[in-house]
Amino acid sequence: MVRAIIFGATGYTGIELIRLLASHPEATIVAGASRQWAGKKVREVLPYIPTDLEFPLVSIDELVRGQVADVAFLALPHGAAGSLVRPLLDQGIKVVDLSADYRLHDSKVYAEWYGDHPDPDILDRAVYGLPEIHRESIKSADLVANPGCYPTSVILGLMPLLNQQDVDARSPIVDSKSGISGAGRGAKLSTSYCEAGEGFKPYTVIGHRHVPEMEQELTQLQGSEVKVRFTPHLIPVSRGMISTMYLPLVKDISSVKLRADFEQKYEQEPFVRILPAGVFPDTAQVRGSNMCHISVEVDDRMGLVIVMSAIDNLVKGAAGQAVQNMNLIVGLDETTGLLGLPLYP
Amino acid sequence: MVRAIIFGATGYTGIELIRLLASHPEATIVAGASRQWAGKKVREVLPYIPTDLEFPLVSIDELVRGQVADVAFLALPHGAAGSLVRPLLDQGIKVVDLSADYRLHDSKVYAEWYGDHPDPDILDRAVYGLPEIHRESIKSADLVANPGCYPTSVILGLMPLLNQQDVDARSPIVDSKSGISGAGRGAKLSTSYCEAGEGFKPYTVIGHRHVPEMEQELTQLQGSEVKVRFTPHLIPVSRGMISTMYLPLVKDISSVKLRADFEQKYEQEPFVRILPAGVFPDTAQVRGSNMCHISVEVDDRMGLVIVMSAIDNLVKGAAGQAVQNMNLIVGLDETTGLLGLPLYP
Amino acid sequence: MVRAIIFGATGYTGIELIRLLASHPEATIVAGASRQWAGKKVREVLPYIPTDLEFPLVSIDELVRGQVADVAFLALPHGAAGSLVRPLLDQGIKVVDLSADYRLHDSKVYAEWYGDHPDPDILDRAVYGLPEIHRESIKSADLVANPGCYPTSVILGLMPLLNQQDVDARSPIVDSKSGISGAGRGAKLSTSYCEAGEGFKPYTVIGHRHVPEMEQELTQLQGSEVKVRFTPHLIPVSRGMISTMYLPLVKDISSVKLRADFEQKYEQEPFVRILPAGVFPDTAQVRGSNMCHISVEVDDRMGLVIVMSAIDNLVKGAAGQAVQNMNLIVGLDETTGLLGLPLYP
Amino acid sequence: MVRAIIFGATGYTGIELIRLLASHPEATIVAGASRQWAGKKVREVLPYIPTDLEFPLVSIDELVRGQVADVAFLALPHGAAGSLVRPLLDQGIKVVDLSADYRLHDSKVYAEWYGDHPDPDILDRAVYGLPEIHRESIKSADLVANPGCYPTSVILGLMPLLNQQDVDARSPIVDSKSGISGAGRGAKLSTSYCEAGEGFKPYTVIGHRHVPEMEQELTQLQGSEVKVRFTPHLIPVSRGMISTMYLPLVKDISSVKLRADFEQKYEQEPFVRILPAGVFPDTAQVRGSNMCHISVEVDDRMGLVIVMSAIDNLVKGAAGQAVQNMNLIVGLDETTGLLGLPLYP
Repeated sequence: MVRAIIFGATGYTGIELIRLLASHPEATIVAGASRQWAGKKVREVLPYIPTDLEFPLVSIDELVRGQVADVAFLALPHGAAGSLVRPLLDQGIKVVDLSADYRLHDSKVYAEWYGDHPDPDILDRAVYGLPEIHRESIKSADLVANPGCYPTSVILGLMPLLNQQDVDARSPIVDSKSGISGAGRGAKLSTSYCEAGEGFKPYTVIGHRHVPEMEQELTQLQGSEVKVRFTPHLIPVSRGMISTMYLPLVKDISSVKLRADFEQKYEQEPFVRILPAGVFPDTAQVRGSNMCHISVEVDDRMGLVIVMSAIDNLVKGAAGQAVQNMNLIVGLDETTGLLGLPLYP
Repeated sequence: MVRAIIFGATGYTGIELIRLLASHPEATIVAGASRQWAGKKVREVLPYIPTDLEFPLVSIDELVRGQVADVAFLALPHGAAGSLVRPLLDQGIKVVDLSADYRLHDSKVYAEWYGDHPDPDILDRAVYGLPEIHRESIKSADLVANPGCYPTSVILGLMPLLNQQDVDARSPIVDSKSGISGAGRGAKLSTSYCEAGEGFKPYTVIGHRHVPEMEQELTQLQGSEVKVRFTPHLIPVSRGMISTMYLPLVKDISSVKLRADFEQKYEQEPFVRILPAGVFPDTAQVRGSNMCHISVEVDDRMGLVIVMSAIDNLVKGAAGQAVQNMNLIVGLDETTGLLGLPLYP
Repeated sequence: MVRAIIFGATGYTGIELIRLLASHPEATIVAGASRQWAGKKVREVLPYIPTDLEFPLVSIDELVRGQVADVAFLALPHGAAGSLVRPLLDQGIKVVDLSADYRLHDSKVYAEWYGDHPDPDILDRAVYGLPEIHRESIKSADLVANPGCYPTSVILGLMPLLNQQDVDARSPIVDSKSGISGAGRGAKLSTSYCEAGEGFKPYTVIGHRHVPEMEQELTQLQGSEVKVRFTPHLIPVSRGMISTMYLPLVKDISSVKLRADFEQKYEQEPFVRILPAGVFPDTAQVRGSNMCHISVEVDDRMGLVIVMSAIDNLVKGAAGQAVQNMNLIVGLDETTGLLGLPLYP
Repeated sequence: MVRAIIFGATGYTGIELIRLLASHPEATIVAGASRQWAGKKVREVLPYIPTDLEFPLVSIDELVRGQVADVAFLALPHGAAGSLVRPLLDQGIKVVDLSADYRLHDSKVYAEWYGDHPDPDILDRAVYGLPEIHRESIKSADLVANPGCYPTSVILGLMPLLNQQDVDARSPIVDSKSGISGAGRGAKLSTSYCEAGEGFKPYTVIGHRHVPEMEQELTQLQGSEVKVRFTPHLIPVSRGMISTMYLPLVKDISSVKLRADFEQKYEQEPFVRILPAGVFPDTAQVRGSNMCHISVEVDDRMGLVIVMSAIDNLVKGAAGQAVQNMNLIVGLDETTGLLGLPLYP
């Protein structure tokens, strides 16, 4: 039985980790940290937790010291997460960090976007935790940087188009749409029901922090520089993310052929499905599941490829992928505990 | 392995049965019937179904004849369901009927509310499938009438107040609120997004069909006639139901004492939780789970007890309870496959 | 032209006052106060305000001193509003107070629910601003206490049943449901999209502050004590309120007759509509309008009357009623600027 | 007083026309046609319509013959609308057609997308009713083809970039998002609350019928061929539309400069607002209003311009623009009856 601890257990990512680990046959949560609720039991904060899943909420300091655990999930803001990694690793606890702190390999790039890195010397121990790309490295890692939600949807959608000849992948245009839980659990006017609930809008049109992360991975896959135009939009649902991506065609290729390529590239992947012709990704069809649904179309008239990918931002975009990474680093089957169907409707 | 067949597999109750049975360790779906989609595979209709859960959709006629199965779930409208029961039972298939056809013991009462009963002679083989009341009878039944969603929320909320001396339980006032999936999956103007999605309203204020079902069970528990004032309201969420119930106090009793009574009465029940003082049921906390959350308060000033109960109308109010009943009739642990946490948020 | 000033101009009630006054042919907003945005122009805070409706946002202190105005709207929390009334009245500015500060006639009752009253000596100058009851007094008042949203929906629904012989009106059971804007504009976890947006729930089941206000007015209309059982619920829409009310019948009376009584009592009222048989109030049909829609049904079997009333909590429940009161106190036709149809859908 | 008749009075566009004309000081609705409700009064179908706005609903045939009116609004599906135009014009009734039937100048292009045109001989009497482009022609027209919702948001967003040197406007990528009312009022599974309400998705990725309309107008403004990549998405709100558009820069130009260009080009337009730096369009800020909000940003790094435009699809995207056109053709001030603020929240 894998003993897990969760830092940030009462945020939305932490809450989703609890849900997934509760039905995971090989893992158990031994403790969690919560700044706001330290000293309580989790059931006092989340009344739906049953007594047999009860665990204590302690302070971050308390949790980082001397807790007997196999894996730690860091569901904390960037900066806060980064400084906890070394003490956890020193105790032999493997770390899945859901913050941005270990996603960028270059501490200078990190500094441009987030400020000084909390612990740059261990950056090179981290593996970028997108199993569809880095599966083998993840298996032997003790520090996995769980990808951001937007980068997950974008990289999975674009991967089959990189480092090949049909498409110009150097500067994709990415128009993304996210549900509101991506903004975290907290009291903010901008994500209150009345402000966010009956409208939608773009935000952070220039300079979203997920851009360098996408570009790092896409560039590595492409073998040459990839730059991304990225426009996120806020949509009034709790969960769900769609990235709609546009790339110029270099050669004539049909939708049928391209869809077949995508299918072939992902045929071994348990969590990616290429949708058949005429079916487009719908976030309702992945809500609560770890799946990524992808459609691809060629627009002959314009000479463009359009890729659309959908995930649940809290599952494949966060907690589900983190459990997938946990499974890999502890040697379990990658899909363990992650095959639940979406909650539809 | 319990082999299940589902009639009405592509309605919301059928879809929820698929979700629950997909993660049930002791059951498998061998086939489904769908009027609209007969001849297709389920994955063609519900793209999120993975290949290893694939099953064929056939016509009702085809499914009722000669399918090798242990349990049949009837997720069909009243009338349509009732006539299938006998041929299924004749093949030795146990039946969990999610329609209203076998809930009322008296075919005359049935006729008043629904028209002539399709097969009145087997009415007395049916057990009303609320395990918290009829667990032992269900275990030995071959025909279980799965309760309606409203009656489930009402009966579970009122049960501890029946046949005792503190409260006058003869004529409870029940003000219920339901999410929209309770209206079924179909193209109706009244449940379209724009009509139902940004408002709420009472409906069927006089004469809702769930009234006789509530009254039958409450009267039996009380030992004398109980009549219910029932006002349902439609609320813009997909899933969720709350019943707020009002009964006159006969004796002085405190909220604390009454809450303790409720806790005691339900302490062995895996799917009922009495919430602590100051915490009220929230449908978000039961969404996707088989739990019923109940709060009880005494209003001294008015001499009233207020009971509030929340369920997910598609789970404890339909498919989850049906699986709970299946577990009982095939001799499995009652909670098998039903302990998943709610999807929050 | 009536010159209006608004305290609390950037909260939801203030924003709604701006909307209504913008299309009011006889009124203009000369200035507003906003704690958070003092020093800005309103268009900087609410980008949709056109340049020709521009007005400055100042501090409360600044607005209360020396502003040339005819009417002041106080859209502030209780306590904060109350202390501003006297200096405004002293300048000859008539006041419509949307807080709770002048709704209760008895400062002792006020103190029980809200703490010490900020200015009890002028309590008796205030008129309770429900025009359907106190129209004539409002016309000659210089201080109008604009009713709470719940009391508006409840009093309008019950008024025709008070002080008559068919119904026992001494202890109505009121089950109310409100959209989320009723909780105000502010950053709170409990009203964030993800917490409030995909579920619903009762709250403040015992001791909601709108109870004494309802009881004061109902008691006065009845001529003897009326006590109310009041259970509010939070519903995931921005705007809208329904109160579903239950009272015991004393005499046999038909729905038809009772509906006719309601129609007769309200036939002169421009903002109350009694719905025909079989049509129930739907908040979508009053969203953005100053109307109150009421249905009434008799449940013979139970000996109960059920009254259902719907309003937009920000219009008839707050800003619209405030403008209706303004019209009355300055001598305009009561409906001026208030006849806009609801935004449907 | 302009006497208006509405064909399709009980669809969402018709309902919105009623709302806008009800508060229009110079227009009155004398009758409406409704296939489903012919023979009723409008208040029987829409209970919120007050008695003094009552008008009869008749059949289309009845309305087209002999009704004394100045202007007819055709809020009907394509094909159905087109054949009514000639008999109306023959009676001297001016026509604002909200269907697609007279938007495309070329009947062959129409035939490709919609089938044979119902009355191609009068195509050349029609003016494309986007006042920001064709104001003068509209003033003297007797047949105005009211633009589609998507084309309105796209053309207004792109107009300042056409026929100039900073940007390559030949092949814009347009990623649009629409609320659900755009699909019309009708019973469809795909727009039911449970299917559409808790998810979002792209649809009609190849071949949406609004493409030829956009291209016709953009090409005319540009003076050379413009082709559009257009991807619509369905978003769970009733009203609202955002188009996010991407075009390659040809010259270096700053966001500040480009924003100033946009402001200058639209400075005389009452219904277009260019948002200041850092503020992005939010559909909540135009809901119920006839405004179009536009932001423009330069992405230096990618060499792209990003334009974002928001409208209410039922107002500036349909009924509001139709009233704007009516004002122009009857010689009223263009803004009459159209200056209401959005309903926020």
